[in-house]
Amino acid sequence: MKITIERAALLRSLGHVQSVVERRNTIPVLSNVLLRAENSELSLIATDMDLEIVESVPAEIARPGSATAPAHTLYDIARKLPDGSQVELDATGDVLTLRSGRSKFQLGTLPVDDFPQMTQGDLAHRFELPVSALKALIDRTKFAISTEETRYYLNGIYVHAPKPKGGEGTALRAVATDGHRLARVEVPLPEGAAAIPGVIVPRKTVLEVRKLLDEVAGNILVQLSETKVRFAFDSIVLTSKLIDGTFPDYERVIPAGNDKVLEVKAKEFAAAVDRVATISTEKSRAVKLALGAQTLTLSASSADAGSATEELEVAYDAAPMEIGFNSRYLLDITGQIESDKARFQMADGASPTIVSDADDASALYVLMPMRV
Amino acid sequence: MKITIERAALLRSLGHVQSVVERRNTIPVLSNVLLRAENSELSLIATDMDLEIVESVPAEIARPGSATAPAHTLYDIARKLPDGSQVELDATGDVLTLRSGRSKFQLGTLPVDDFPQMTQGDLAHRFELPVSALKALIDRTKFAISTEETRYYLNGIYVHAPKPKGGEGTALRAVATDGHRLARVEVPLPEGAAAIPGVIVPRKTVLEVRKLLDEVAGNILVQLSETKVRFAFDSIVLTSKLIDGTFPDYERVIPAGNDKVLEVKAKEFAAAVDRVATISTEKSRAVKLALGAQTLTLSASSADAGSATEELEVAYDAAPMEIGFNSRYLLDITGQIESDKARFQMADGASPTIVSDADDASALYVLMPMRV
Repeated sequence: MKITIERAALLRSLGHVQSVVERRNTIPVLSNVLLRAENSELSLIATDMDLEIVESVPAEIARPGSATAPAHTLYDIARKLPDGSQVELDATGDVLTLRSGRSKFQLGTLPVDDFPQMTQGDLAHRFELPVSALKALIDRTKFAISTEETRYYLNGIYVHAPKPKGGEGTALRAVATDGHRLARVEVPLPEGAAAIPGVIVPRKTVLEVRKLLDEVAGNILVQLSETKVRFAFDSIVLTSKLIDGTFPDYERVIPAGNDKVLEVKAKEFAAAVDRVATISTEKSRAVKLALGAQTLTLSASSADAGSATEELEVAYDAAPMEIGFNSRYLLDITGQIESDKARFQMADGASPTIVSDADDASALYVLMPMRV
Repeated sequence: MKITIERAALLRSLGHVQSVVERRNTIPVLSNVLLRAENSELSLIATDMDLEIVESVPAEIARPGSATAPAHTLYDIARKLPDGSQVELDATGDVLTLRSGRSKFQLGTLPVDDFPQMTQGDLAHRFELPVSALKALIDRTKFAISTEETRYYLNGIYVHAPKPKGGEGTALRAVATDGHRLARVEVPLPEGAAAIPGVIVPRKTVLEVRKLLDEVAGNILVQLSETKVRFAFDSIVLTSKLIDGTFPDYERVIPAGNDKVLEVKAKEFAAAVDRVATISTEKSRAVKLALGAQTLTLSASSADAGSATEELEVAYDAAPMEIGFNSRYLLDITGQIESDKARFQMADGASPTIVSDADDASALYVLMPMRV
């Protein structure tokens, strides 16, 4: 393989694919990126065995072929080369030689045949999603993904197309929960997505896809089977295994009949929670909400630090009540409210509370209270 | 004590003083800031027993007095209060109450008498230094300060006013070294500094002073004794103990008669070193400089990663030679060269090398070679 490519194009693509490569690998070739040069294109492929990314960029091919080389090292070199330079990559024997200007790098390669490529198989379901919709599905749920490895079936976002009894589905829905909070968001059902199976997309895949979305516009092509998902856009294809597990019946967690309704100015509320939480103990991060007629009193206290209270004028006319929450969870959720107003639907101080954007029904959050 | 102060003024001063307060303290009161209100001023005092900072800000004093309260907590609260708000601080009994808008915080205080204040004593020497001069003394030496605790006498910057034999001193000089590299920088001798003792200013003091300098202009008043140094500017006074030790006779480390002179374009050289070092082993960070007529070849290699070389056109007409350096040390030093050209004066591949700015004799660096 021998090619010439612009440094900027190489850097951009390496930036994308190296992100999938883990820093430590027990299988050495997983530290490498597979470079494949053919038909005026260089393809860069990286994998961690669960997630594979393939990106293609135009390049001048002097000699087609392929090689694998350390992904992070190659990325670091590309990053440090001067702007506007041309890069020659020449793989011969087990050495990849990179030349640019008066710089020359020789990197050890590993056999191309050892590089694990994901079996492509048939991804039967196929639909297109606007970038903005995929961003919403991810941004509004990812903070609730569990990090507990023992509950592996919660370590991702559950994506499905709910079908009401006897009716047609109208939404594509994403749900994440860690047992303390739950996030559920919907976007209009894309054509071709009505019959998809419910799948759990792993956290790493979610985060890698999300990073790439900042650079693209238009539509994303999503392909899906029971075991794999693929996202394709621009010249990037990202294929990931799905989490092999059963997502819990989350609808049972969403309370019906929470009749105490509180409406707050979202930004003002978040700022007050953040202030009051300065005093809450490092461990619990608890803040208490005491509700009276048109008044919310936020408070926190800790044996070490002291106490804090703040009063807010709010819309509330149900019976007075008190309820405690983890302030970080409150802030995670209010950070997702884009309109002026956040709505809380509560039952009592010991039951799950529903939080939503008062002007946007597409997202709903459930928050478990804390004893305070 | 009861005062009212603008949030912006409180935040700015707390930002300065809380930086001196360590995160963990065996003596609880050291986590606190001492607040003292009198004569239309609030003074904020923080200390770690070696370094004390006092800042005064105008405030409306309703009841003079003093109190100590947790510095980091107070800073966090001030940070989170809305822009433009007024803050009331009211210390009664062992509680400090902070009120602002509809927020109220109650923080536990500790007795003012327990707060250790530095005995002021007599600082006999006194001179003024332009901010730019103090910045130069610190910036060009601080990277060479040793972090080895056993060599405590190298854990700071040695400041003195060298007196040539039989002549008058003309410079104020700062020196730092960690045994691998040495940095020496001079500024014109300020009036009143000719007779100062040689003192070692501890790293933390150096870094705290440096942070504050970004916000000031004009002159800094420096006062000095054998055991203490004080920096005063604007409404801030920073007093620090000095390191009680003997700084080594650094002049003996600076080689005389290094006759092989290399001149490089500083930025181009630094970029090339950085690129080539991508390949050097994590541990040694070694790069090799091979010098021939008007040519410098930089190279690095590691058993794992491969090899890198880069050629530069340079000014060099002495005998060919090879020498190795830690690439980080080279980059630290070339980062201090402000003109286009860096000058290397070498003897051979095993002896210390002098690096300097070709257009500025005020700073000089000595670098020990590495075997490569």
